[in-house]
Amino acid sequence: MGRSGGVTALLGIDYGGTHTKVLLAHERPSGLERVSAEIFRTPRSETALSELAGLVRGLVRSDRPSAFGMTVAGILDDASQTVVTSTNTPWLNGRAPARELAAQLGAPGVAVHDGAAAATAEAIMGAGRGRDDIFVLALGTGIAGAHVINGSVRRGAHGAAGEIGHVAFGTGRRCSCGQYGCLESEIGGTRLGARWDEERGAPPGSTARDVVDAARAGDAAAVRVLDAATSALAQSLLGVVALIDPGAIVIGGGLARSPKWIVEPAVAKATERATFHRLPPIMAAELGVWAGAWGAVLAARAAAGGTNASVLGQIRRVG
Amino acid sequence: MGRSGGVTALLGIDYGGTHTKVLLAHERPSGLERVSAEIFRTPRSETALSELAGLVRGLVRSDRPSAFGMTVAGILDDASQTVVTSTNTPWLNGRAPARELAAQLGAPGVAVHDGAAAATAEAIMGAGRGRDDIFVLALGTGIAGAHVINGSVRRGAHGAAGEIGHVAFGTGRRCSCGQYGCLESEIGGTRLGARWDEERGAPPGSTARDVVDAARAGDAAAVRVLDAATSALAQSLLGVVALIDPGAIVIGGGLARSPKWIVEPAVAKATERATFHRLPPIMAAELGVWAGAWGAVLAARAAAGGTNASVLGQIRRVG
Repeated sequence: MGRSGGVTALLGIDYGGTHTKVLLAHERPSGLERVSAEIFRTPRSETALSELAGLVRGLVRSDRPSAFGMTVAGILDDASQTVVTSTNTPWLNGRAPARELAAQLGAPGVAVHDGAAAATAEAIMGAGRGRDDIFVLALGTGIAGAHVINGSVRRGAHGAAGEIGHVAFGTGRRCSCGQYGCLESEIGGTRLGARWDEERGAPPGSTARDVVDAARAGDAAAVRVLDAATSALAQSLLGVVALIDPGAIVIGGGLARSPKWIVEPAVAKATERATFHRLPPIMAAELGVWAGAWGAVLAARAAAGGTNASVLGQIRRVG
Repeated sequence: MGRSGGVTALLGIDYGGTHTKVLLAHERPSGLERVSAEIFRTPRSETALSELAGLVRGLVRSDRPSAFGMTVAGILDDASQTVVTSTNTPWLNGRAPARELAAQLGAPGVAVHDGAAAATAEAIMGAGRGRDDIFVLALGTGIAGAHVINGSVRRGAHGAAGEIGHVAFGTGRRCSCGQYGCLESEIGGTRLGARWDEERGAPPGSTARDVVDAARAGDAAAVRVLDAATSALAQSLLGVVALIDPGAIVIGGGLARSPKWIVEPAVAKATERATFHRLPPIMAAELGVWAGAWGAVLAARAAAGGTNASVLGQIRRVG
């Protein structure tokens, strides 16, 4: 493996619970160029990594990568590269998937936490590029936060930092984490749907998408639910600013794709309520569903001997 | 100036609004030894720095320091060493006090933020020594927080990080910062006294000390007020753990000197309410009122060419 026609090829694998995204990039003087990208259903069960290797080989063909990065959805021990627990890909528990895949692909590889990978990519080559201190917030079914300083996620003393979804206010509803009044219990994707169903007395089952669509169509209950959710988000943003004072905040995840209903009102409320705060720029994420795969490419880049810190603000998607 | 009998002398000046503490230390292979220490009323007005220089000269006599550190109570621009605003020592506004004092003392000096100095000292040579990732919380009239990583305070993108006293819950009482439901509005020293006065229908004027004394004597209203305050503190500690995941938490400031009524119940409640949290060791501060002066000595040490990071866990008070 190695260079292909003098160009370094880097492979990013975003291995999710339902879908896997694979992205092959070339390193150019002007930045990272997307050469090919594919989404397929995640290979599951004990033989998942062999199947994955086969799918990857089909994608890269003769353009063999110098290194690959692979995301893990769950708790990863960075040092040993072992998956501690992964609720959505339990067949990886106790295994070192990047090592196994490296043996099959004949290229060095590294495993990275999926949230950290996506946040790093948004910070380095997405909405945060050119800045060195960014808090990235991902609004999905769960709420994930990551503070990216000089291109590296601050993982915390036990690898557990960034849980902005579970900074509890101590009153209000019970969250899935067992505390009361967490941000995730207000704006977590499934909670948003459940609240709307409650609010209008409908049977459960609505998604966050349904709530936004209903609000857009003028449904008063949906507007009320989103209003409460964006108020909670605004309060959490102010808390992050007070405690961490980041240089910028990037908001991504599925819900961020409806800026008019989520990000814009939350930023407006945070701005209105700010007192002593130095409110930094708050921006919507740019890499969409490909953030994790780009993060895996950056991990591959580091594994191949590059340093992402040295190219802060220079890495661009040129493809 | 320089060494005195082959020993490096370092001077720490904790220049507060009412009292100034001066501490002279020798650097020994075994650690920093306190040689002399004095507390006097803070010289005030335009000529304060000349008076301060005279007092310092009287204290150090022939044991001339290689360098000094001086704390500033207010907003300091680290790069230019200029005081932006200081409510309690307004005669320093717009001046670079360490430069002026350096000219008068004939030794290099550096100004440091008072809260950052105290937190650094607690982290490096107080309760946090030997650890590299500590969140220091100071409970006083105001509530200050500082995240000390590898011996340095993380100041944030605008020098405004650590405001744990003003991470607002959005409901409850109005805080002096203009938000609602801040930790400081619950457990800030003056607020604690005011709440007790309200609770028992007494005229205002009680101090935090009065509340703790009354609780100790069995006053039910004081016990209720402290119970609410330590509940709020516990909730904030869990928030810091969720968002920052520090390796340890050190609680100092005047209120921490009544551990049975403040720190111990807050830690018990945080432990009881913790769900997914990796609760780190939570300890009372050790340096008491001298934390700021020791922090100034550490700043002097760095200014004299030493690096505090290199001696983490080795610096001890031997005096």
